Amino acid sequence: MSSFFDNLPVVRYGGPEATDPFALRFYDAGRMVLGRRMEEWLRPAVAYWHSFVGNGLDPFGAPTHERPWFSGDPMQAAVTKAEAAFAFLERLGLPFFCFHDRDVAPEGETLRESHARLDRVLDVVEAQMQRTGIGLLWGTANLFSHPRYMAGAATNPDPEVFAFAAAQVKHVLEATHRLGGANYVLWGGREGYDTLLNTDLRQEDAQLGRFLNLVVEHKHRIGFTGTILVEPKPMEPTKHQYDRDVATVYGFLSRHGLLGEVKVNIEANHATLAGHSFEHEIATAAALGILGSLDMNRGDPQNGWDTDQFPNNAQDLSLAMLEVVRAGGLGQGGMNFDAKIRRQSIEPEDLLHAHIGGLDTTARALLIAERMVQDGALDRARAERYAGWRQPFGQDILAGRMDLDALAAHAEAAGAGPKPRSGRQEALENLAARFI
Amino acid sequence: MSSFFDNLPVVRYGGPEATDPFALRFYDAGRMVLGRRMEEWLRPAVAYWHSFVGNGLDPFGAPTHERPWFSGDPMQAAVTKAEAAFAFLERLGLPFFCFHDRDVAPEGETLRESHARLDRVLDVVEAQMQRTGIGLLWGTANLFSHPRYMAGAATNPDPEVFAFAAAQVKHVLEATHRLGGANYVLWGGREGYDTLLNTDLRQEDAQLGRFLNLVVEHKHRIGFTGTILVEPKPMEPTKHQYDRDVATVYGFLSRHGLLGEVKVNIEANHATLAGHSFEHEIATAAALGILGSLDMNRGDPQNGWDTDQFPNNAQDLSLAMLEVVRAGGLGQGGMNFDAKIRRQSIEPEDLLHAHIGGLDTTARALLIAERMVQDGALDRARAERYAGWRQPFGQDILAGRMDLDALAAHAEAAGAGPKPRSGRQEALENLAARFI
Amino acid sequence: MSSFFDNLPVVRYGGPEATDPFALRFYDAGRMVLGRRMEEWLRPAVAYWHSFVGNGLDPFGAPTHERPWFSGDPMQAAVTKAEAAFAFLERLGLPFFCFHDRDVAPEGETLRESHARLDRVLDVVEAQMQRTGIGLLWGTANLFSHPRYMAGAATNPDPEVFAFAAAQVKHVLEATHRLGGANYVLWGGREGYDTLLNTDLRQEDAQLGRFLNLVVEHKHRIGFTGTILVEPKPMEPTKHQYDRDVATVYGFLSRHGLLGEVKVNIEANHATLAGHSFEHEIATAAALGILGSLDMNRGDPQNGWDTDQFPNNAQDLSLAMLEVVRAGGLGQGGMNFDAKIRRQSIEPEDLLHAHIGGLDTTARALLIAERMVQDGALDRARAERYAGWRQPFGQDILAGRMDLDALAAHAEAAGAGPKPRSGRQEALENLAARFI
Amino acid sequence: MSSFFDNLPVVRYGGPEATDPFALRFYDAGRMVLGRRMEEWLRPAVAYWHSFVGNGLDPFGAPTHERPWFSGDPMQAAVTKAEAAFAFLERLGLPFFCFHDRDVAPEGETLRESHARLDRVLDVVEAQMQRTGIGLLWGTANLFSHPRYMAGAATNPDPEVFAFAAAQVKHVLEATHRLGGANYVLWGGREGYDTLLNTDLRQEDAQLGRFLNLVVEHKHRIGFTGTILVEPKPMEPTKHQYDRDVATVYGFLSRHGLLGEVKVNIEANHATLAGHSFEHEIATAAALGILGSLDMNRGDPQNGWDTDQFPNNAQDLSLAMLEVVRAGGLGQGGMNFDAKIRRQSIEPEDLLHAHIGGLDTTARALLIAERMVQDGALDRARAERYAGWRQPFGQDILAGRMDLDALAAHAEAAGAGPKPRSGRQEALENLAARFI
Repeated sequence: MSSFFDNLPVVRYGGPEATDPFALRFYDAGRMVLGRRMEEWLRPAVAYWHSFVGNGLDPFGAPTHERPWFSGDPMQAAVTKAEAAFAFLERLGLPFFCFHDRDVAPEGETLRESHARLDRVLDVVEAQMQRTGIGLLWGTANLFSHPRYMAGAATNPDPEVFAFAAAQVKHVLEATHRLGGANYVLWGGREGYDTLLNTDLRQEDAQLGRFLNLVVEHKHRIGFTGTILVEPKPMEPTKHQYDRDVATVYGFLSRHGLLGEVKVNIEANHATLAGHSFEHEIATAAALGILGSLDMNRGDPQNGWDTDQFPNNAQDLSLAMLEVVRAGGLGQGGMNFDAKIRRQSIEPEDLLHAHIGGLDTTARALLIAERMVQDGALDRARAERYAGWRQPFGQDILAGRMDLDALAAHAEAAGAGPKPRSGRQEALENLAARFI
Repeated sequence: MSSFFDNLPVVRYGGPEATDPFALRFYDAGRMVLGRRMEEWLRPAVAYWHSFVGNGLDPFGAPTHERPWFSGDPMQAAVTKAEAAFAFLERLGLPFFCFHDRDVAPEGETLRESHARLDRVLDVVEAQMQRTGIGLLWGTANLFSHPRYMAGAATNPDPEVFAFAAAQVKHVLEATHRLGGANYVLWGGREGYDTLLNTDLRQEDAQLGRFLNLVVEHKHRIGFTGTILVEPKPMEPTKHQYDRDVATVYGFLSRHGLLGEVKVNIEANHATLAGHSFEHEIATAAALGILGSLDMNRGDPQNGWDTDQFPNNAQDLSLAMLEVVRAGGLGQGGMNFDAKIRRQSIEPEDLLHAHIGGLDTTARALLIAERMVQDGALDRARAERYAGWRQPFGQDILAGRMDLDALAAHAEAAGAGPKPRSGRQEALENLAARFI
Repeated sequence: MSSFFDNLPVVRYGGPEATDPFALRFYDAGRMVLGRRMEEWLRPAVAYWHSFVGNGLDPFGAPTHERPWFSGDPMQAAVTKAEAAFAFLERLGLPFFCFHDRDVAPEGETLRESHARLDRVLDVVEAQMQRTGIGLLWGTANLFSHPRYMAGAATNPDPEVFAFAAAQVKHVLEATHRLGGANYVLWGGREGYDTLLNTDLRQEDAQLGRFLNLVVEHKHRIGFTGTILVEPKPMEPTKHQYDRDVATVYGFLSRHGLLGEVKVNIEANHATLAGHSFEHEIATAAALGILGSLDMNRGDPQNGWDTDQFPNNAQDLSLAMLEVVRAGGLGQGGMNFDAKIRRQSIEPEDLLHAHIGGLDTTARALLIAERMVQDGALDRARAERYAGWRQPFGQDILAGRMDLDALAAHAEAAGAGPKPRSGRQEALENLAARFI
Repeated sequence: MSSFFDNLPVVRYGGPEATDPFALRFYDAGRMVLGRRMEEWLRPAVAYWHSFVGNGLDPFGAPTHERPWFSGDPMQAAVTKAEAAFAFLERLGLPFFCFHDRDVAPEGETLRESHARLDRVLDVVEAQMQRTGIGLLWGTANLFSHPRYMAGAATNPDPEVFAFAAAQVKHVLEATHRLGGANYVLWGGREGYDTLLNTDLRQEDAQLGRFLNLVVEHKHRIGFTGTILVEPKPMEPTKHQYDRDVATVYGFLSRHGLLGEVKVNIEANHATLAGHSFEHEIATAAALGILGSLDMNRGDPQNGWDTDQFPNNAQDLSLAMLEVVRAGGLGQGGMNFDAKIRRQSIEPEDLLHAHIGGLDTTARALLIAERMVQDGALDRARAERYAGWRQPFGQDILAGRMDLDALAAHAEAAGAGPKPRSGRQEALENLAARFI
């Protein structure tokens, strides 16, 4: 049976010198990197929505991408799309995909019909998964596109909407469980506000906390062992979203008793929209014990919205990969290419080029991080900088064995005060660049 | 004895129609506003540093402001400055000021000498306070200007710097206590990083948590009943500061067992640098129970650094004042004009104009908020929006009496799903504008 | 015949104290302001696209607004829409509207059919204009939504697209002429690039210059006496647009011999996206002699995309209105509310509230500017600051009667150099606030 | 005679595999790149101000860098500094430096004394230049640090300040001529405004235009054959600077008859502050015929001020170098490292590391650009995209042989309209990454 992507070549590893535009130059699934297969470090996934639903629409223009499943009977189109998706995944050779319920099957007139439709198309998806061996990195429910969610899902001023969202999440969580998904993600695109004039922050925080607890309780009830992940984003579509960044989500999880249960899915472009570097968010999540999974993409440094471009600068990304490696990897998380081809990229092969580039950039960044870690000089320089804190005086302070009086007495006895030492930023940047 | 500001007029309330540029048009200390004197709502303060130390220096230019105490014997100059400061405060008629140790007295060769110098000038300050009846809203230690702090104070890689900072804070906290200060503030201008390449986030978080706990422990030991306040700022001077915004500080306080002990001092320009509106940060802190005090100023919406300008748009500020009023006021916090005159504002009277404008803008914003609250339509519209959550179904959800299965059953029984209702943003904005 | 908006009340002027949410509090068309009717200063217009085509779609969500003309036979729907639009305009009582060809009538299979469809619906529009007396502020061709324009219209790498765009503009320019339009606008939403990797800036500049010259030549040929306006925007939808801001457009017009022929239509939110204040762009255009017309709206200071909200802060806007008044008004330009209701504002009355708020904010800002100008103190302060340039020495310099040697000799003779004078920013801000 | 930098090693080319932190890995002055020596493409320069005057001061902290010439007799210190500077330049091995008058010698009590002081230290500089063979890329006058310039130099409201600035520029232009400088730069850090309330844009534009014409006239009078360069920057220190970006400067030059006489010195961090990529500004200047010289540095993508960091990402920079190569190089311009070491980089060797990193990043980027050009695929893809414009129809349009009627007739005859073609962005990005 033929598919839209049949004419695309199968992508293979060709090595750094390959000039075939369909060859991978750095992503070599089985290559050993710091004791693990490269594929295990990356656990790369294709995003069903951007890759198979995205149509080139933007706020000022109509769709530009043409796919056979964009017209015709919706349920038949959903099946055609699923088959094409797996044909694409096979050509690309990645181990995972991710989906929202509404990417896979169209919403029905009622919730029950929507569930039934999803289940029917997921039967096809499941068969394709078995046929190809491709797994599910995570599933998620789309709680942002339908007008009923325009004022929030869990944080909606109407509890009926909360219930509707709860039903939808229950179904997709169970479907994710059935498909052996490794994680379940919640992105709160409408959990925020457009104006404080109509918003009660305390009320909405209580709702959001309750909602997430419901999901965690249900996960345990059904025996789902995947991780529940919250995906931070500061704004867009709303003026202000509650899951702003990693530190904000940490505070939220702490407040609602969810530490230890919920982690974060960090997206590069969401990090930069929030005023952080990607590596900052990864390092922060690792330090706070909530690093879960990554959404790989990049923003445009000159544009103030979520451009969701494929990563293309391995040097930039190497610092993020270094933090992943320092954290010991992502566990059952992975790296989902939550990125979309540009509106002008209208040929089927553009979708393949985009993923090849994103994947190679990520793999190359991992190889750079490997060299950084193996060389050890960066880690050593950092450790030496804090050496004093491993000495008795530093340990006494951290252990609470010195109060303010004791510290003041110590400092006053020391006279003119400690001498500053160089932060060596430029030398370290040069060192980091040596591994490119 | 004559002072630099002697030629400036004494500022008096003249009413909205006053055209005298030295008259206050809206700030009328004794006017009753929602059951309290205006002065009690605002508890306004002058910032010693910007107003008496600021010299017009910027990264591309030399000082432009001339003050007699900018030259001569440093200790004598510090006394002259203190006397001039109170002469200015008297002309302006505000009840409070705020200071850093290094604003008041120059650092000595040793910590002990620095302490002694501070104490000597604070004797003068204390006498002026008694003479004038002007109080101290808060004190703070400057842990950011000296080279020893270039890599952080509490988060410095060298524990000797931590100890030095501890000694300095201890001294200023005690001095603040002695002067009857209502609060003590910590602003972590160097508690952050310039590059992740030399930074260990987990280590620095542990240091910062320990430091703040030390301060809280000492506060109780000495019987200081003021509030300990952390002042969020996302960046500048460092690339990234740990106390990024209110939500980030909340998570930090939670992690280190400091909720209930420490609140936030929110600055308008810091809020906007972090990507928030001022009212968002106030409402968030109120919802999280950590609203402490405010630093009044504004940024420039076209510039990406801390411009610290005096507030001048009462409509903008009215939404922030509304949140203060909704929160029941700031308790022992207040509103400190952490704002500086422009580099070109070189005349002594410019300093007075700046404070008159900032104070009047704030007072006018409070009066707008008063009308909003008295009218009640804004509050009613908000309450009605969430009415469903006060019904049994909403209450059952929030109280945890419904699990995901029960919610799903409810939603599935409901059929096509809830109908969206208008968010009425434009109507509410029009309503809010009616009170200007 | 009944219309969608029939249940909305007719908006009337009620004065500043009016509490009816459908009353205008400041916009009083016939009120004399500095020698002209308020309506003549504002020449306010409703934007056909946002108000009658906008459906609440955003990049993460489906349409939320329901209008009868969003379904059914497209040509019949276009007529229904036109009739409803004029019913709305009548209730609002504004003298003008603005349109893109594609707002009014759906595109056909061929260019000829598209033209014919537009002409047919414009017959209805023309009849409504005659019936109501409402005029056309400007027309424009949509050269950005259709996939053919995805890589630009005039700047497309394919000259066939250039020709197609030329045909479309010719037709809409002629239609604008037929309807008595006061101006014709070109907004280059796709005249820019997504990546420099596929872009030849010099080539595209030549194309864009030729295109605009063609339009100007044709305008004269057909006797259209309206102004040709370019609308600056820095980005969005593309990464980078050529008509970035007023100064950039000035350079472009100069390079292609179009000064004196083409002016700018300045939009507030486009100004802020480009890093300017609205008043800066107006003052710059006035200084450069290319101030044409205004698109009234506002952005969100915390969001980095074009939010196109209705203006709601009269103090902010008063500085823009001051520049309009200083420029002597907009001539045959006007103030088009290029603003859209929020996605959650789903009731028909929300559209009316939005326009009432925008109009009242603008009118109030004009009244503030009137007081500023009548008082004269702001203008005097500015004039006095430059007084030296009206003296012989200043005049000699500007007239080129002193060369560098003469100036150096003058300065060296002067000794220590000129003394700085206060810029008085805070005093002037206080003064400006007095007129609110 | 010994110098502060004597203990630093001499930097030598060691090749890509070198691990000595003081070895250059990519900058190999004599290596032939596309027919020229690498040194000729780069013409690299050290910035006297950042490297020898910068002291680590920031808006929140005191100086951290210690140099022997920061204290003692100012004139003697200036000589010590000059000798140290050349010792540093020799170790680094670059062919050029750049200076402001006030970097080299302290200002005197009068203009005449300032001139005399500068001349005296420039005698030392000149001797060092002769001794070392190091040349002057450009000189410039500091018209922004002194309080007299706080409200502008050429655009000051006081014509006496204009005259003072004119005298200063005359002297430095002549000094630059005497030292064989290849260019003369004007950066208008104070040519802008802090508030429109006290600003007359038209007046200040006339002043700035006159000033630049005076400089050009004088250049010809004295026979200086270097290029006069304006350096765009959008803001900082002022709220808004007139020389915002390349396109704005183009318009200014055009308006004041200066095209052909004046070009631009483009700084990377100024480009990004203005919302542009560095490569955009270079490509724009090349397209407009005003590409002069480059200031090499980078900003921090998360910070909104001029961080002036040394470039460290060769992939990013390769697109800028590609535009330089496409433009045929910079002529008598060059690449000045207008970058400063971080405040924490307090060791003398940090200054050397910084320059090594910046230089190597730039050289590596040039080598990437060389491969891009030699391969040709990127250039071919771009040329093919516009192929239609080299055909008769495209040529007819550009040559003005078709009017709007003719184009419309052509388009109408074509039926359904042109088909869009893929922009191939991801494929081109992958291709570009292949050369890293």
